[in-house]
Order: sequence, then structure tokens, then C-alpha cells
Amino acid sequence: MTDTAVAPRTPLTLLGTGAMGTALARVWLAAGHEVTVWNRTAARAEPLAAEGATVARTAAEAVAANRLVIACLLDDASVGEALDGAGLAGRDLVNLTTGTPGQGRARAAWAEARGARFLDAGIMAVPPMIGAPDSGGYVFYSGSPELFEEHRDTLAVPAGTRYVGADPGFAALHDVALLSAMSGMFAGITHAFALIRPEDIAPKDFAPLLADWLAAMAPAVHQSADQLQSGDYTRNVVSNLAMQAAGNTTLLRTAEEQRVSPELLTPYMELMERRLAQGHGDEDGTGMVELLDVRGR
Amino acid sequence: MTDTAVAPRTPLTLLGTGAMGTALARVWLAAGHEVTVWNRTAARAEPLAAEGATVARTAAEAVAANRLVIACLLDDASVGEALDGAGLAGRDLVNLTTGTPGQGRARAAWAEARGARFLDAGIMAVPPMIGAPDSGGYVFYSGSPELFEEHRDTLAVPAGTRYVGADPGFAALHDVALLSAMSGMFAGITHAFALIRPEDIAPKDFAPLLADWLAAMAPAVHQSADQLQSGDYTRNVVSNLAMQAAGNTTLLRTAEEQRVSPELLTPYMELMERRLAQGHGDEDGTGMVELLDVRGR
Repeated sequence: MTDTAVAPRTPLTLLGTGAMGTALARVWLAAGHEVTVWNRTAARAEPLAAEGATVARTAAEAVAANRLVIACLLDDASVGEALDGAGLAGRDLVNLTTGTPGQGRARAAWAEARGARFLDAGIMAVPPMIGAPDSGGYVFYSGSPELFEEHRDTLAVPAGTRYVGADPGFAALHDVALLSAMSGMFAGITHAFALIRPEDIAPKDFAPLLADWLAAMAPAVHQSADQLQSGDYTRNVVSNLAMQAAGNTTLLRTAEEQRVSPELLTPYMELMERRLAQGHGDEDGTGMVELLDVRGR
Repeated sequence: MTDTAVAPRTPLTLLGTGAMGTALARVWLAAGHEVTVWNRTAARAEPLAAEGATVARTAAEAVAANRLVIACLLDDASVGEALDGAGLAGRDLVNLTTGTPGQGRARAAWAEARGARFLDAGIMAVPPMIGAPDSGGYVFYSGSPELFEEHRDTLAVPAGTRYVGADPGFAALHDVALLSAMSGMFAGITHAFALIRPEDIAPKDFAPLLADWLAAMAPAVHQSADQLQSGDYTRNVVSNLAMQAAGNTTLLRTAEEQRVSPELLTPYMELMERRLAQGHGDEDGTGMVELLDVRGR
């Protein structure tokens, strides 16, 4: 529908009005959707009533109100508890609750067994980024392609959408993979700030150098992807493991000089040493993914 | 000098013609500088003779040839060995050799005691980025401000320059801090690729999502810098440690489901648990820098 000004907005139910659920409800309400909300602690849903939401007394009542049901609860167990006894047949259930790929797949089977279509999601945003199109936040979706196609405009109201496949575990997998990588980056950032902390260097002078450097190095992932798809970890290597290991010595000595614990850096260095000991000094870092694989153990 | 076409180029001496030294020599030669080179293994300097370089038989001879002397050797010990017995009085020594802040400071005192001005450097580039202004590579410099001012145009020929202070240890410190942060980011990237590896997800489809996410999250360092300068680790917190620790559970469970060792993620999570145990659940990650500080131990 191109004339969005008169297009009817899909009414929807939102289960869970924590910080994220409340941010989502507000944006859908502001966009003209009828929103029915439910929260286990009812008082936390009340502020949304003043903004036009209908507050249901039970989750089952909320599910009965609309075909499109969005869950944004504490964890996967909360989804099972809230929806236990609700009439899910014919419903479109979109699960924005944080979980693992396995939980997403199991919840999909559970919902489909109850007659619902199911879409799992992974939110790559914090509440302040919801309804802020320029914030860079977005949501991964996976599961029923028909559900996604039918509701994509509604789902796009609070944040950008990225559909990553029919496997209902893929949204959580993409979410967790990106958060895991970010966790590593933040560990590195913590070590970097600890290194400069004893010196007369203003963190605000150092921060732009650090941000620009990390942003400039992030595209190294394309080289890793190319190697992983080709199966050749020596392809287009610029700085090989033997050179990187020599550099690690300088990193560790500097940590010692600055009296900074190297604990956040050493596991990656140890993995590098293991890969080197296997005779892979001509690779760069990508081949180390094989050492993390414990499927054979 | 604005008319660079006729301005005389500063002649210079370059000690060390490994991959980086050779890349540097080529760019200076191409820009019209007279370059005298020396390498411990003379054969590795010979190819540059064909490109116009003068090859000195000894390091002392190379140092005698020009006032501006640039060292790009294997390590700090190699600098001491190469320059032992060379006449450094009145020379401007720029040390592009990889080292620690402490090595930079000690080498500065050593050079100054021999009558030379000294500038230490940290190269934020690999050889293919030398002479490629759009590559994003650059070099940190610290030490004699007079030396830097006098030779800044010459130093800017191979890569961008960033002067970070009179303390000769600061170039290496900035270099190592950025490389340490990058090491953490690469550890996170390795874990992320290991997570998707067992699945039918093309690394080349995943890579752009990963690169964009890390680049979008890198500016979080400005929030850390603001907290470090204010001394208030609870300032402008969006996702506090208590929430992040809950998220870690999902990261660890997913690693287990995907049969990926969590060894690259756990040290940061353990540090987070220690900070939480100290009662700092209302902070975000920045306060963890204090736990890395072993000065009191």
C-alpha cells in the first residue's frame, strides 16, 4: 500500500512491557496501531494505557484480542509460562524475547504444534534506539517466511528488519554471534584504556583514535569470510601468524610495563600459539576457528 | 615550501630493508628523496639500488651519509647493535622499529646521550598500506617536537603522521593500545565465525553484518572516555552490568549449543562478575579497567 496515510494499521498484541516492550509499544501506538498489552506485573503496563494502549488482564485475553502477537519477555521460559493455556491456533507469534538458537527452534515447534505461525527475532538495539531510524539499530528475524512477508511493514515500524532464513534458530544465532564479537571488542577496548590510564593521556583524546582504528580494521572480516568459503586459510595473507605472535610479545611486555593484567588478551594469544604449533605459521588468524570447534571432543 | 615541484627533498638514511623498510624506501625514492640504505643482510638491500638508493656497507657509513636517520629494524636490541659505534652526534634519529613504551624512552635517553635528537614511532599500517594515502594507515610519533616539526613533510611521504607528545614512550603506547584493542576484536570475530560455521550460513553473507555491527559499536569508546574523565562509571549508562551479565548466559549457552569453546569470551565475563560482586551492577563496562590495574599488587 503506497498511501500509508489511509492504510489501516495492523492491530497487535504485545506481551511484556519492560524497558524494551514499552519502547516498542510507544512507537507502534505513535504510528497509529491499535495495541493491546499485557505484563505479568500489571502496574508496569498501566502507563501505556494513558498513551492509548488497551491493557489486558491476562496473557490469554491479550492473545485473543489480535492475530499478530509479539512477545518481549524476560526469557524463553517466560514465553512458555505466559502463553500456557492461551489460544494460539491461527495466531502469528513473533518472539522478540532474547534466547539461544536452540530455544528459538524449540519454541517454533511448540508454537506450530499449537497452530500458530512463528517468527523468532534478535534485537540489535537498546531501548533508546527503538523508533530512531538513524540509530543503526535493527532486528534479525527468522522462521516463517509467510509471516514475515505479511507483517514486514508493521515489524519495520520500531526498527529496521533483516530476515535471515526459515530456520527459526538463525535470528538468535546472528544476534548472539554479533554480540559475542562485540564482547571481544569491548574486552580489547577495556585493556586499551587500562594501558593509557597511568599516563598523562586524556581518554577523550585517545578515544577518537581507538574508535577510528577499530572501525577501519572491522572490514578484515571480509578476508576471513573469503578464506572460510574457499577453505584456504593462507589466501591473501598480509600479516601471518608467525609475525603476529612476534607482535604479541610487545603487547605483553607493554602490559607488564604499564602494570596491566593481560588476562583479556592471553586466551587469543594462546590459541594463536596452538595454531602455530600445528605448523600454520603461514596463515593469518582465521584458521583458529577450527580450534574452537569442540564437536569432535 | 609551497612549490613542492622544485623544493629540495631532504636526503635520508634508512636502516633496515625488511618488508616495511623496503616499502618505505621505495616511496621516498619515488618522491625524489636521496636515500641511503643499510641492511644487516646486504643482499636484501640490493634491489633498492636498482631503484636509485645508495647501499652503504656499514650502518656507521649509512649514518654518516645523512643527518636524518630512520631505523626500521627487527626489534629494539637490533637498533642498539646497528648503531653501536655510529656517529650519532648532530643526527636526527627516527625509530620506526616496533617496541614498548619503556624501550622507546630508554632508546631516547640513549640517543640523546650520544648527541642525537630522537623521535620514536609506531606504525599503524602493514607494508601494502605504505604510500597509499587512502589506505587509512598512519604512523604515531612521539619525542622531540623540534625534530618532528623540521621533518614532518618528509615523514608524511609514506603515511599520515600523528604526533602524540614529547614523551618518547607515547608513540609505542598508542600503537600497542590500538593493537591490543584490535586483538580483542579479532578474538570476538573468531568466536562469531566459529558459531555460524556448523550452519548453512555463508560467511560472505554474515561478514557485512559483522563488519557493520562492529563499526557501529566502536564509538562506544567515547562513552567510556567520558566516564573515565569524569570518574563516574554510572554516567549515561544504557545497558548496565547486571543486564549484560544476564546476556552473557545466552552467549555461553549458544556457544555450548553450537559446540564452540567459550575460551575467548570467558575472561571478560569473569571480570564482569568480579565487578558485579563488588556491588557495581549499575555501571556499564568501563569500571572494569580498575580490575586490570595491578599497580597495587
